[in-house]
This record gives sequence, C-alpha cells and structure tokens, in this order.
Amino acid sequence: MQPDAGSRGFPEAEFAARTARAQAWMAEQGLAGLLLMTEAEVRYFTGFQTLFWQSPTRPWFLFVPAEGKPVAVIPEIGAALMRQTWLEDVRTWAAPAPEDDGISLLIGLLDPLARSGARLGVLKGHETALRMPLADWERLIAALAGLEIADATGLVQGLRMVKSAAEIEKIAHICAIGSATFARVPYMVSEGQPLEEVFRAFRREALAQGADDVPYLVGGADRGGYVDCISPPSRRPLARGDVLMLDTGCVRDGYFCDFDRNWAIGAADDRARRAYDVLWRATEAGLAAARTGNSCHELFAAMSSVISELDDSGGDIGRLGHGLGMQLTEQPSHMAGVETVLQDNMVLTLEPSLSYGDGLMMVHEENIVVTPQGGRLLTTRAAPDLPVI
Amino acid sequence: MQPDAGSRGFPEAEFAARTARAQAWMAEQGLAGLLLMTEAEVRYFTGFQTLFWQSPTRPWFLFVPAEGKPVAVIPEIGAALMRQTWLEDVRTWAAPAPEDDGISLLIGLLDPLARSGARLGVLKGHETALRMPLADWERLIAALAGLEIADATGLVQGLRMVKSAAEIEKIAHICAIGSATFARVPYMVSEGQPLEEVFRAFRREALAQGADDVPYLVGGADRGGYVDCISPPSRRPLARGDVLMLDTGCVRDGYFCDFDRNWAIGAADDRARRAYDVLWRATEAGLAAARTGNSCHELFAAMSSVISELDDSGGDIGRLGHGLGMQLTEQPSHMAGVETVLQDNMVLTLEPSLSYGDGLMMVHEENIVVTPQGGRLLTTRAAPDLPVI
Repeated sequence: MQPDAGSRGFPEAEFAARTARAQAWMAEQGLAGLLLMTEAEVRYFTGFQTLFWQSPTRPWFLFVPAEGKPVAVIPEIGAALMRQTWLEDVRTWAAPAPEDDGISLLIGLLDPLARSGARLGVLKGHETALRMPLADWERLIAALAGLEIADATGLVQGLRMVKSAAEIEKIAHICAIGSATFARVPYMVSEGQPLEEVFRAFRREALAQGADDVPYLVGGADRGGYVDCISPPSRRPLARGDVLMLDTGCVRDGYFCDFDRNWAIGAADDRARRAYDVLWRATEAGLAAARTGNSCHELFAAMSSVISELDDSGGDIGRLGHGLGMQLTEQPSHMAGVETVLQDNMVLTLEPSLSYGDGLMMVHEENIVVTPQGGRLLTTRAAPDLPVI
Repeated sequence: MQPDAGSRGFPEAEFAARTARAQAWMAEQGLAGLLLMTEAEVRYFTGFQTLFWQSPTRPWFLFVPAEGKPVAVIPEIGAALMRQTWLEDVRTWAAPAPEDDGISLLIGLLDPLARSGARLGVLKGHETALRMPLADWERLIAALAGLEIADATGLVQGLRMVKSAAEIEKIAHICAIGSATFARVPYMVSEGQPLEEVFRAFRREALAQGADDVPYLVGGADRGGYVDCISPPSRRPLARGDVLMLDTGCVRDGYFCDFDRNWAIGAADDRARRAYDVLWRATEAGLAAARTGNSCHELFAAMSSVISELDDSGGDIGRLGHGLGMQLTEQPSHMAGVETVLQDNMVLTLEPSLSYGDGLMMVHEENIVVTPQGGRLLTTRAAPDLPVI
C-alpha cells in the first residue's frame, strides 16, 4: 500500500491547475467556454464524486469559462455535495423536470456568449456521448443560435491523458489492491468451483484488500483456453486443463486499475503455455517501448511484432491497450496508425492478445506510467510462465 | 430465495414477445424501425449482457425493424457473445475505429428506409442519452437525409415500464438478497466504525447473500440524522446518537433492487423517531395507493399528504419514487402532475423523504409490484419504529 493509503480527494490546487491548463488551451483555440455533462469530466474539474450518476434520470452540467472557476448547473439533489467542492457558483433546479431539465438555466448562463457569437466547446468526438436527452440538446442549441459549437474532445482528452502526481498515486494504490487480490486467487480457486463463484470470491477479496468497488469483472475459463473476454461468468465448474482468465477494473477514490491474470487449472497444455509465453514477451516489448516520445503506433508495433510469432490476424479487440484513470478505458489507443505521442505521466494499459488453437484467445494486461526510460509498472508483473493452480 | 434462484437469462420467447409488442406499437405510430444504442435497450431486445459497456470507447447499435428479429451492429469484440442470443443478423466492425465506428454499417442498413422517407424511432426524450459521439450522429443523419427521425422514448419506456412475470421474478430475487443483507447490518455495524468500513462490509455481505454486484451504495450518518443522500462514505466513525442510512442498488442477472434502511446508533432522539414514523406511514399510504388504475400523481399525493405532517417543502429529491428494473431508476416518476396510469406488473420504488430539524433529511424506500389491490412488497418491509443498533 502507499504511505497515504487513507487520503481521499485532491487539494483545491489540483482542480485549479486542471482548470488553468484547460483555460490556456481554450485561449489558444478561441473557446469562450466548455459545456461538459459526463461523469468523468464533471469530476475532473470539480472533484464531485457520487454513484448517483448511475441513475439516468437527471442530467448534470458543468460550464468551464475562459476565466475563473467552473459553474455547476445541477439537480437540487446534488447541491449539498457540490457545495463542498471548490466551486462557488452552483445553480440548481428541482429535477426531474422533463419539461425543463436545466435547459432554461443553461440558456441563462450561455446567452451572453451566444449574443457575442462566441465559440463553445462540447464533446462530440471519439469516446464521448451526449449525456442529456437529444431533444433537449436540440432545443438548447436552437435557443442559443448565435453560438459557434466546437468539438473540444481533443482538448479535454489531451488534458486527461497526462496524469498529475496525485492521480498517479491514486492509480498506483488501486493497482496494488488489484495485484494483492490476484495474488490470492490461487488460494480462492479450485477444480469443481463454478466460475460464477470465482467471480464472487474475487469481488469479496478485492473489497477486503481495500477496493471501494469492483465495477468491472469479466473473464472466462474453458478447456485449454477461453473464447471471449467480455462475458459474465458461467456456472460451469472449473475443470482440470482449463485456462482461467479474470480481468478486473477495481476502483478506489474514483480511479481505476484495469488488468487481468491467467491461470491453468491442474495442468497447462503446450499450446496455452506457448500463447502465454508469447504474450508475456509482447508485454516486455511494450514495457520497453512505452517511453516518452514514442508514438502509440510504435508501442503497438513493438507488441504486435512479438504476437505475430503465433498470430498475425490482429485479433478481435482492435487495439493492444489504452489509457486508464477515472475511466476503465481512456485515450489514447495503442493501434496501427495512431500517431499520438507518449508523454511523461500518461497512465496506460499494455494489453496484448492473440488467437490460437481452435477459436481460443488469450489476453495479458498490465498498467504502467510512461517515463523516458519506458513503462514503469503500477501492477505486480504477471509470472513469466503460465501459473498452474 | 426464489425456487429458481439459479436460473439466468430468459427463454427466447421473452425477447420475441418484447419485440412483437414493440412492433405492434411501431405499426400504430408508423415507425419503420427503432435505432437503439443504450445498454438497457440493447439488452431488453436481445439478452446481450456484459459489463463491457463501462468502457466508453465503443458504440453499440441495435436496429428493431417493423417485422422480424432485431439486427445488431456492434464491435467485433462482442460478436461471440451476441451470436449466443436469439439474433440471426449480427454485423460487426473492428472497433475502435474513430473514423468510422459503425457509421457506414448503419448507413448500409438504414439507407433503404431513408430512400423511402420512412420514420425511424430513436430515444430523444427524458431519461435518455445519445450513447455515441454527437459528431457521428450528425454525420449519420446527414447521410440518411431522407429519414424522418421520430422520438420513440414513450414507446420504449412504455414497453419497459410493465414487467413480465420472468422479470418480476428476477427483481424479487435481488430484493430478497438486499433484504437479507440489510437484516445483517445490525450485526456488522458498531459505534466507532468509520462509515467507509460499513459500506465495505455491506458490499461484501450482499455478495455473500447472492448479489452479482453492488454497483450502487450511498448513504450517510451523522448526529440525529444525515444531510444528503447521494454521498460516498466518509471516514467519520459512527457515534452514539447518529442516524445511519444505507441505500443500495444491488444487481443479479442484470436486474436491480433499489431501497434503503435507517438505523439509530446506540440511541434515537425524538425528532429522528418522529421523522421515521411519518415516513413509515407515508410508505403505508403509498402501498395502498399503488394500485392499478391510480395515476403517479395520486400515488405521490397519498404519500405527500402524510409527509406534510412534518414537512411541506417537497424536499430536494423531486419525486417520491420511480420505476425499477434493468436500471436503478426507470419510468415512471411519482411526482405532482404526472398523469401516467399505474398498470398491473409495473415495478416501482416507494421513496418518501422529508427534511427536519436543522438541515437534516430522511428517506425511506421499498420496492413493489403494482396490483389491483395495491403495492405487493418485493422487499421485507422496514420495521415500523426506527431500529436502534
């Protein structure tokens, strides 16, 4: 565990620094403000943290102006919590109000910008969604016809991709919890146990190790390997000769780990051992290539050149890792053709995968920080040979 | 537990019936199809269940035609799992592909409709979001200019509001798990325990009781009451005289419970006892009023007339309960002015709340099925007096 294992949240300076960086980039791009409405973005600039986002009923809005602190436009139910953040201007309405769920408040806030024909940044690009009713969005834009709507996806993702020291500490903490949980798996798992029970035991152990929650847990187990990597658990009992994979996104204080581990039950066959070895070495190549200044494409190529010893199909997953932080998957993607340059303090997954045998697949995954010397592991490195339980 | 506690998923007939009902309503509204992209809707018509939706990277699409089975347009990573459902037409692409994340596949699928000027239903209304990049949506609509886009929110929410017997069984099962977990709380909680540890113990117990996950857990504890109901846990130790509230959405096989319980630590003061009594009786009034043929407004009025004994402000939550099922909160909302008529087999929360004392609040919540005789409890009814731990 980290020395400050108990600390939660960030000092106000963290949010002020994030906002200042955003405003500097906004100035370069001629943006008079950002209108944000997704959980990670609202939290990034405010620290507002609640599981209440799981209710789809209410929209939440944050306006980041060209200067000064962000302004929250949120349902009254969140007012007490938002007023504990560094924000000063928190505007609320009694939601749900389907006929006017914050829209007239937003019009009041943004009308001066519209009148001056200003540019407003919103998230319209890859990995974004419009977390408000589409009809309300259309109504809002019609009422603010003078606004020029610009896509601020690159700006916001560019900010979030590079983590602060405090963010890296939080991700390192949850990665340590994940590693400790995976280390317990050989003692939790046995032949004859339904996969569903393995999942249940894993979640309970991760909580005991200090995770706040285990929102993401997928995996598979079948004879000699598994066939997909996003399924819920079956009730099939583990059998000798199975390869078991568990892939988890545990969370603590709003930051994720995202990595997996593989085990053989009772005995491992040669094909599974070979696949494991190739992926372990692909990860080694990724660790070396994950250094400041390399591109995502180069990181991808370093891993796929090892993977191609066994599989040159490119696989179904479409990429060999991604960014990680407040969300399970973030920018960038390690893919062919992605020219994004790795920067100091990006937090990434290395996630080489391959197909082998008769429709089987295997995935390895580690979490790292980009440094000038290559990837610094946040996870306890997987064993070099397929572990047998 | 229910007799079939082990069963998962639904028979194909369930999805065929849902699709047939949708198609009957689509015919009435002159819709040539529905284009859906959110987790609950895709799962409702297919049974496709994965936690992978937590990754924001990839969009997923489902087209429900006027006749025949739905067509999936999804990332290749989901193909194996989607092909296990009752669907026959599963179209995939190698996502992520920011330059064309399913858009040309959708254009190929929908172009015949556009050429004939057909009406396509999409979700644009209250409680919906556009789970794809806004720029991709704009591009899609521009390429399909002949389409008439209609808001199908009422249609889809109308379908989902009334549960099948198989759905009610699943919700009853997770409510029983939630009730069993709450029954254990007095044995898990003690003075001096940080609230954060109470949350951790609750999650672990819910998993042990059979929950697949505890994605939603909020609550509060403070002297004589709590001040908001959507916060993550503090590290403040429980103290004598606190009122503790835990509100959970546990999930099993993709269906939620959503209810809370309140306890006093060591001793309860009169104000808290009085608030509890008023809310308990408000829930009784809700149970009686939650009968087929009453409106949501009438259900709201029945509860608020009791609440007004102590608080006539209407509170911050904006409603006194809501629908429940595949999502933590669904339609309808029990609010003033909502004329939605309660139907047999709607599953609802009754969630009366009030403010009291100096900025304190209290919330009660139960989960029920609407019947002609009133609400049938799926949860084990809260004790009539504030329990003291």
